Amino acid sequence: MKAVPDPIEFYFDFSSPYGYFGATRISQLAANYGRALVWRPFLLGAVFKVTGSGPLPSVPLKGPYSKHDMSRCARFLDIPFTFPDPFPISTQAPARAIYWLEQRAPQRIEAAVLALYRAYFVDGRDISSPQTTADVLATLGLDGAEVLAAVGEPALKERLRNETQTAVERGVFGSPYVFVDGEPFWGHDRLDQVERWLKTGGF
Amino acid sequence: MKAVPDPIEFYFDFSSPYGYFGATRISQLAANYGRALVWRPFLLGAVFKVTGSGPLPSVPLKGPYSKHDMSRCARFLDIPFTFPDPFPISTQAPARAIYWLEQRAPQRIEAAVLALYRAYFVDGRDISSPQTTADVLATLGLDGAEVLAAVGEPALKERLRNETQTAVERGVFGSPYVFVDGEPFWGHDRLDQVERWLKTGGF
Repeated sequence: MKAVPDPIEFYFDFSSPYGYFGATRISQLAANYGRALVWRPFLLGAVFKVTGSGPLPSVPLKGPYSKHDMSRCARFLDIPFTFPDPFPISTQAPARAIYWLEQRAPQRIEAAVLALYRAYFVDGRDISSPQTTADVLATLGLDGAEVLAAVGEPALKERLRNETQTAVERGVFGSPYVFVDGEPFWGHDRLDQVERWLKTGGF
Repeated sequence: MKAVPDPIEFYFDFSSPYGYFGATRISQLAANYGRALVWRPFLLGAVFKVTGSGPLPSVPLKGPYSKHDMSRCARFLDIPFTFPDPFPISTQAPARAIYWLEQRAPQRIEAAVLALYRAYFVDGRDISSPQTTADVLATLGLDGAEVLAAVGEPALKERLRNETQTAVERGVFGSPYVFVDGEPFWGHDRLDQVERWLKTGGF
């Protein structure tokens, strides 16, 4: 057994309600089992091109159900949630901001992820806008102008493209998608299995 | 509140591992909350034509994951399971047998569903064969020759077509799919929400 266990990797898209639900719970889960957490925002749209899939609400039959299920899951888990409009949105701006924070202030990432998710799924703010993303992060004491400049940087655009490509290569096809010691778990509704895995080292 | 609450409706395809997992748990859940249970086998293939979807293992990225997830879910839930070959299979024969039982011996349906599921997902028997379906039901004391004749009857073919059509009209797009007082739940991983719904009357 390693002295320091590997971090949990949490892949998510900022436009994914189930990603939001998972994000509100994964930190506590990691902390309970002495694990660090790596936040990996990626672009679900790029993955859909590989799987031939599309945003859930656009799928016949499954679409209307999924909107109903998202709201019910939020009530079941007691997580504040209002189905946003527009939905889905492009999430380059908030995703790049997280990779910028990884270099500048990694200890702020968790608060930033949750603040951006809440802005979209609770307050209905369109975080696809770089300005809105900057405004949300400014409420955490970060420099809004610096965030705004960062999300337009070629290096961060490249970083997000690479992370999304890596996600596809690792088999990530949905959000959230969690790796624990290489074991893949798709969906916030597999966090009970993630917990068992952390507790027992595999089953 | 009704003196006798409505039954729980359990839609499933005999080729669905998640349908099997749900089937092993739904009876106890219904019994715990004083509900009758209506078993509704249907043909998932007909639904996939409407949604433009296909059997999970054939979907890029999601396919390999789903096979892994099915086996892990079985271990998590402590349900015996061996991924069968061939998979998926046509399920007209076992589905029609259940509708035949509904007329002839409704009290045997639950045992028949579980015996057929176990034959396929534990013993690897190909229940798409009418003869195999008849053999499995014969182990429950039913008349195998009678079952074999029944699954070829035009009236039972028509019944299954109608039930599948009704399923699509009600929005059923996957297996298992459960209705509690009209509220739809997709997936064995929503049975915890089904239980809360039964307990509280909705949330």
